Amino acid sequence: MKRPIIFITNDDGYQAKGIHVLIEEMRKIGTVVAIAPRVGQSGMSHAITFKDPLRVRTLETAPDFSFYECSGTPVDCVKMGLDKFFKTLKPDLLVSGINHGSNASICSIYSGTVGAAREGAINGIPSIAFSLTDAHHDADFEPYRSHIQTIACAMIEQNSLNTNVFLNVNFPKVDSIGELQEIRICRQTKGVWIEEFDKRTDPQNIDYFWLTGHFDNYEPEVPDSDEYLLKQKHTTVVPLKIESTDMEALGVLQEMIATTSGK
Amino acid sequence: MKRPIIFITNDDGYQAKGIHVLIEEMRKIGTVVAIAPRVGQSGMSHAITFKDPLRVRTLETAPDFSFYECSGTPVDCVKMGLDKFFKTLKPDLLVSGINHGSNASICSIYSGTVGAAREGAINGIPSIAFSLTDAHHDADFEPYRSHIQTIACAMIEQNSLNTNVFLNVNFPKVDSIGELQEIRICRQTKGVWIEEFDKRTDPQNIDYFWLTGHFDNYEPEVPDSDEYLLKQKHTTVVPLKIESTDMEALGVLQEMIATTSGK
Repeated sequence: MKRPIIFITNDDGYQAKGIHVLIEEMRKIGTVVAIAPRVGQSGMSHAITFKDPLRVRTLETAPDFSFYECSGTPVDCVKMGLDKFFKTLKPDLLVSGINHGSNASICSIYSGTVGAAREGAINGIPSIAFSLTDAHHDADFEPYRSHIQTIACAMIEQNSLNTNVFLNVNFPKVDSIGELQEIRICRQTKGVWIEEFDKRTDPQNIDYFWLTGHFDNYEPEVPDSDEYLLKQKHTTVVPLKIESTDMEALGVLQEMIATTSGK
Repeated sequence: MKRPIIFITNDDGYQAKGIHVLIEEMRKIGTVVAIAPRVGQSGMSHAITFKDPLRVRTLETAPDFSFYECSGTPVDCVKMGLDKFFKTLKPDLLVSGINHGSNASICSIYSGTVGAAREGAINGIPSIAFSLTDAHHDADFEPYRSHIQTIACAMIEQNSLNTNVFLNVNFPKVDSIGELQEIRICRQTKGVWIEEFDKRTDPQNIDYFWLTGHFDNYEPEVPDSDEYLLKQKHTTVVPLKIESTDMEALGVLQEMIATTSGK
């Protein structure tokens, strides 16, 4: 079998430790093209840049590996890579991460790491977002190498998953590899981040605010949800879909508008 | 019945024409609190700002109307407003827009206008994103006032829609109100933006790239999809949901991982 072509990006920037671990693992499997943001892009979700121009710089090129940095968002990196290298032949896999910090539950909506994987799926590429529930810049990614291999290989070999589905993978923080439990397929925990702005005053006596908050887990005891399983030290895999029309709401909405229009 | 409290934001910034039309319409219905970005935030999707502080400035305050600008993204504006004004009492409605430019089909993923409405829904607030398929800064919003009223009032009065569902409303560009057809409930058209980077060279002889592209509509003739109906000059209303786990994929994925792990 010919070696697969794997497209790598992240949201923590090309210098982050997580993407270098992911590059090492993917080079064991295939030919790697990596394009990562110039600077950290955490919380950039599915943002794109079209009112400012983008810059790209080559970091490294070898026969089976090339690495670039781009001035834009994670989704810009995906779009740039697809345009630059994959006009005729799509990559066999897109992987994003490994993010320094959890992207479980509702965090998948805010995450640039997940945004990049979603953009891969929109373009019909099997795509995976990898994140570790440890935001430290020097987090230990060693325990997860085998799980990364399993999930990436499964995604390359499969042909039964709908092309519009991509994977949101989270690793629990563990102190040793012995503590890590097996991979579990599950659904996204329902919950919300409750915002708490931290108000401060600058030297010019003008207020400014830091966005902080805490996570309100609506279902802390539901065993097939990702937050719960991460607490049990499982690696979690949530299949996410792009399509977001709520087909069940169509009828209710029809009625609502008809009633109000008729008044 | 007590007058509803309506939270308004947008992604084109507080000076855009679209938000001022929306403010006028909502003030006919209720008490309005508006918090909009300081500058244009098109394409910011569901991005949040937590590595830089945010600033807020009061633009206007009256008994039934207050207006602020915030240095962050549309979702930051929603979070800021919820924290600042709605800690104990939630607004009855959140409306975002009117966006200068279409947010139909897959654009709903990239849109800051839609991101703000999604954030409202995440917080359990009935939420609507309004967009006009005309990106001109001086676009004519007059023909759509009656449809805005119908949809906003329907959303305030209803109690049967799941709280995790929000509305993505798009108005067709029309030359006169007579050309505008009735409101249609429909689903999001399937399609993809094909990126085409426009490469240029700056005076320092360094390349830079503008993100451009064209929309590839996978189903141009499907009559219950938003792109099709907009071409027929209908106002389109698509119910979108927050939950994006693909429950059908869980079994397939279980099998995939088990097979690969067993090798």
